[in-house]
Amino acid sequence: MSLSFKVLAEDPSGGRRGCLRTPHGEVATPAFMPVGTRASVKGMPPFLLKEAGASIVLSNTFHLALRPGSTLIREMGGLHRFMGWDGPILTDSGGFQVFSLTGLRKVAEEGIAFRSPVDGAELFLSPERAIEIQEDLGVDVAMALDELVPGDAPRAAMEAAAERTTRWARRCRDAQKREGTALFGIVQGGMEEDLRARSAAELAELDLPGYAAGGFSVGEKKETFRKMAAFTASVMPEAKPRYLMGVGTPLDLVEASGWGYDLFDCVMPTRNARNGSLFTSAGPVTIKNSEHVRDESPLDPSCPCWGCRHVSRAYLNHLYRADDPTGLVLNTLHNLTFYLGLMARVRKGIERGTLAALKAEIAAAYEKRGA
Amino acid sequence: MSLSFKVLAEDPSGGRRGCLRTPHGEVATPAFMPVGTRASVKGMPPFLLKEAGASIVLSNTFHLALRPGSTLIREMGGLHRFMGWDGPILTDSGGFQVFSLTGLRKVAEEGIAFRSPVDGAELFLSPERAIEIQEDLGVDVAMALDELVPGDAPRAAMEAAAERTTRWARRCRDAQKREGTALFGIVQGGMEEDLRARSAAELAELDLPGYAAGGFSVGEKKETFRKMAAFTASVMPEAKPRYLMGVGTPLDLVEASGWGYDLFDCVMPTRNARNGSLFTSAGPVTIKNSEHVRDESPLDPSCPCWGCRHVSRAYLNHLYRADDPTGLVLNTLHNLTFYLGLMARVRKGIERGTLAALKAEIAAAYEKRGA
Repeated sequence: MSLSFKVLAEDPSGGRRGCLRTPHGEVATPAFMPVGTRASVKGMPPFLLKEAGASIVLSNTFHLALRPGSTLIREMGGLHRFMGWDGPILTDSGGFQVFSLTGLRKVAEEGIAFRSPVDGAELFLSPERAIEIQEDLGVDVAMALDELVPGDAPRAAMEAAAERTTRWARRCRDAQKREGTALFGIVQGGMEEDLRARSAAELAELDLPGYAAGGFSVGEKKETFRKMAAFTASVMPEAKPRYLMGVGTPLDLVEASGWGYDLFDCVMPTRNARNGSLFTSAGPVTIKNSEHVRDESPLDPSCPCWGCRHVSRAYLNHLYRADDPTGLVLNTLHNLTFYLGLMARVRKGIERGTLAALKAEIAAAYEKRGA
Repeated sequence: MSLSFKVLAEDPSGGRRGCLRTPHGEVATPAFMPVGTRASVKGMPPFLLKEAGASIVLSNTFHLALRPGSTLIREMGGLHRFMGWDGPILTDSGGFQVFSLTGLRKVAEEGIAFRSPVDGAELFLSPERAIEIQEDLGVDVAMALDELVPGDAPRAAMEAAAERTTRWARRCRDAQKREGTALFGIVQGGMEEDLRARSAAELAELDLPGYAAGGFSVGEKKETFRKMAAFTASVMPEAKPRYLMGVGTPLDLVEASGWGYDLFDCVMPTRNARNGSLFTSAGPVTIKNSEHVRDESPLDPSCPCWGCRHVSRAYLNHLYRADDPTGLVLNTLHNLTFYLGLMARVRKGIERGTLAALKAEIAAAYEKRGA
């Protein structure tokens, strides 16, 4: 077994403080994975990711398979060596991006036929191919290919997709060849509790080393998300790491840690940084706003990142307005430091039984402003 | 005196190994100053500049005066505090950029009237105003306003410009109010030895703490540049630091150090990095070229920068093609590490009398390829 997971402490709410062991090191959970779409978290070489507190990163199979190609990355010694990151890496299956190619793809039991958005070439993504690509990359955790349906799809479509997702997960498992890559299955079932429960139970029979909850952040209402994501965690195997895909806001992360999730990923801290939307302990800050033009104060006095210790909001405002890439670097370093620091507080909160207080603090800073 | 300069060792060729003392620390000379146009070396927060080996940076008065404005920077505690760089800073006078606004500016003895390229506002740059702006910025070294004429201007125009430059330097000196900002005068005179000598002698009478050679890198032939820049150094005061403005290539820096120059600045390492043109000990590398797509080797095995120690040319090629800002960061960090490492070798070469060997090595790597 290339991957092991141990729960070290539990919160009364159901939150778990754990340790995920991978061939490339340990991850203290709950953990947030910065998104490095094209074998790079934009503007953040690995030494800056480490400075921000990252212990595991996510990369996107679809983007890497198109460019530079998984064969090239395998020839270059695998994704870790290629991008110079020696910690754990998880990749998605590529399914999410392929399903987003509306009009360019055709889904069948065998897999998904689609046209490359780069050069128009006819391509095919099957469960077996998704595993082959991720094993070429040599990642620590590969995600099974799952079938996605729109958030507002009818129940029958949700049910069929969840069932196919389980069949595809079995095919992914049977296609595995590489020792060091662990496979996670993905629980689907839309916003229907019984479908989610059945999906989780059927996938559990495959005894995979980890499971994810998919199909969230697809436009569902916040209350529906909360109810269904919490329910899904409760039906996922207790002894395995639980990964809530594509989530979320600071408050989402604190709440979902309390529901028993162990892993998260989201483009929000990195993409927002590039747009000048910054996360602070006092709530969101839009750094381009004119109120910051002459603001001598640091972005967040409680943040340990380089920018918060050395420069003012006025300077970050200037860099944003000048479209200077130093702004992108400082803003991304800050937002990741905030997200990863928040996860460290979540872990302490679970150990000490103070997660509820942390949740109240983050809700006060973020909920009213809708960010 | 806010600034002092001491020659510690001399090379038989005339190169000097010195120490420039400023209110923000010492600079071992000959030194290269990375260019931080808008209070930022693009993509390089100060902690990365230090990692690359920078001890002094240059910023552009013209760009800062337009945005965010020198008054704002003064209110924010000065340029050092604004950009989070605690080492020495030198600024140009803004003259070079204003003279480049052909059609938008009018030159008279009093100064230069021009229209802001940002908002069209009517502005005026005089010697007094150039000093006021640079003192607002609170830099360690301010450059006097000089009159620039095209490289192919007639001798009479060159002579008149050099004479006006001296009058303007005196006005700059008389306008000084701030203790901690040292003023450097600029030797002009085009490609005429007698004009250069007269300009240097007249400026020397002002007994300024440092002098620069201006009017190079304006399209003159390489041999003309070599002859005139070397001659100009020979007529500049020996006891003061000599700054060769806007120069140059790796070979230029080694050669000009041998002529007795102590300070350099150039956008080449940073701008080229953004274009994927990288400097290595074996010569220039165009990282986007297809020969690097599957090249597992480091960009430069003898370079200590993070990228050269951790990733391949294939990865840098991928980042360039993906237009990923991590590529900009790694490439800029590399090129500055190369330039600043080269200057460290120049300093050792002067100390040990081995500058000629270094020049031969760099000429072999760079001269034939014309980079």
